[in-house]
Amino acid sequence: MTDRPDKDTIVSSAGRIAPFIHRTPVMTSEILNQHSGNKLFFKCENFQKAGAFKSRGAINAILSLGKEQKIHGVATHSSGNHAQALARAAAIAGTKAYIVMPSTAPKVKVEAVKAYGGLVTFCEPTLSAREETLESVIAQTGAHEIHPYNDYRIMAGQASCFMEMNEQCGPLDVVLCPVGGGGLLSGTALAMHYFSPSSKLIACEPEGADDAFRSFRSGTLIPSGETNTIADGLLTSLGNLTFPVIQELVSDIVTVSDHFIIEAMKLIWSRMKIVVEPSAAVPLAAILQGKIALSGAKIGIILSGGNIDLDKIPWYGTY
Amino acid sequence: MTDRPDKDTIVSSAGRIAPFIHRTPVMTSEILNQHSGNKLFFKCENFQKAGAFKSRGAINAILSLGKEQKIHGVATHSSGNHAQALARAAAIAGTKAYIVMPSTAPKVKVEAVKAYGGLVTFCEPTLSAREETLESVIAQTGAHEIHPYNDYRIMAGQASCFMEMNEQCGPLDVVLCPVGGGGLLSGTALAMHYFSPSSKLIACEPEGADDAFRSFRSGTLIPSGETNTIADGLLTSLGNLTFPVIQELVSDIVTVSDHFIIEAMKLIWSRMKIVVEPSAAVPLAAILQGKIALSGAKIGIILSGGNIDLDKIPWYGTY
Repeated sequence: MTDRPDKDTIVSSAGRIAPFIHRTPVMTSEILNQHSGNKLFFKCENFQKAGAFKSRGAINAILSLGKEQKIHGVATHSSGNHAQALARAAAIAGTKAYIVMPSTAPKVKVEAVKAYGGLVTFCEPTLSAREETLESVIAQTGAHEIHPYNDYRIMAGQASCFMEMNEQCGPLDVVLCPVGGGGLLSGTALAMHYFSPSSKLIACEPEGADDAFRSFRSGTLIPSGETNTIADGLLTSLGNLTFPVIQELVSDIVTVSDHFIIEAMKLIWSRMKIVVEPSAAVPLAAILQGKIALSGAKIGIILSGGNIDLDKIPWYGTY
Repeated sequence: MTDRPDKDTIVSSAGRIAPFIHRTPVMTSEILNQHSGNKLFFKCENFQKAGAFKSRGAINAILSLGKEQKIHGVATHSSGNHAQALARAAAIAGTKAYIVMPSTAPKVKVEAVKAYGGLVTFCEPTLSAREETLESVIAQTGAHEIHPYNDYRIMAGQASCFMEMNEQCGPLDVVLCPVGGGGLLSGTALAMHYFSPSSKLIACEPEGADDAFRSFRSGTLIPSGETNTIADGLLTSLGNLTFPVIQELVSDIVTVSDHFIIEAMKLIWSRMKIVVEPSAAVPLAAILQGKIALSGAKIGIILSGGNIDLDKIPWYGTY
């Protein structure tokens, strides 16, 4: 797919992936509504297959491939949810998934990839080592690369999340979406553009990995330098395909501190009784930190995933 | 209500409480199905109002009272979920809730009761102090006592949980239910007797608070002596109203160790992405510990609640 996904592409992607993903529930909480003074609608992608929205884009990308394209498998580098999602999607499509992971990746994530049948190659924990190792794996295997977010097929798959939300919640005033590389954000932006053009989309980003915020404000793609945040799913930088969509269709980007990310995460666990990972708590953190100046609004919040090492819960200070 | 709830009473109780409780979802997990070799259906009472099934019985008991009976409020002693549920139910019914709590009750539970408008009286952390203090509160206020479980109105309210489950899951081969004082278990037993008589009900109890197991096996009500388990919702002993129902209608009672309770709890958090308290994990613990010798069966599991102090998660050894 070489063009930005249009309405038809988004609709047909949603139909194609539907048998392989969950239509996740939307939850509400009276206590959090009172707390925020708004009506909050939480889209629970923590209940998605493989524990995160990434399953949507990964399966869409693989199902987009012709028989010849996928005959030698697919490949990516990822230490996180895309790795698991791609391994699962490849198994469904009957092909191999070569996953390059940093040697520092948590054992629990490596095990999850292997449980889906993913073939793991370890490398040094630097971006250049990851890219070089991936190139070499592709050279050896002939596998087709599927980037975690800078890919229109991924973007079209992630768009299905807001399509469901729109059907489940009715018209929302605002949608809050976490941003890392921008796959979920750009997919959500396109879906909102086509299906709920009067809703506003605000991206929420950790202060310690604020390349999207800086790029958005400056109008130029500025990759992350060093990152420092508990939101391990949001360390990546925007790509040349995701950034223009975000620039055009996102209303604003706000940043939040790790303090509020942890507070938001704990509030979701204790009040809603669901497990979300730090990255998923970033939008509620923006509300808690006073970055979303609204009251009485219908606010959609995308809880992006629930994959967290339960032996490293952040408020125990062991993260 | 002086007679054991019959079918009509259970049906009318369910109708009466429906506007004030959640029809909680039933969740499934492919991974846990594979793990156990059965089809597991988890009834998510952790998502119930006030975080536990106790809201069903509490609101049923209060709605059963005539105007005169509730004019001076209701009273109970409880350090746990019944306290919160009764405080909430009293607020809905427009009356007061006097809650006697041990001085050692976790601050988070005391705050939750107060947040619902409950009036807390503290006492020494012994059963006799709790009972004496409750008597004195009732003498002073004229409040109507609502026992946490040894009460047919409570039993009839808790029965609504299985009625929903039966509609949501279709015929189940077996239902696993945690047992403490036996309110949920006896209510479930009655509902199964009337609505799914061919299903088997197995109660699951912590080894460290096994009065129900010992009473069931000996045929005599044997109260708990000292208790020692992480499942803080299951420390109470069966009552003279709950025991006969259990003796008559429950197929078996099995006990589990705290080791397996913690393992089951962690498995539910990590795989299902939901927060449950230790007591709610006891039925899955019975499966993990090999106490439920079934394969290929449709097994219903009641996840009784999700109220846990997130600063005292058991696998951190700080509990």
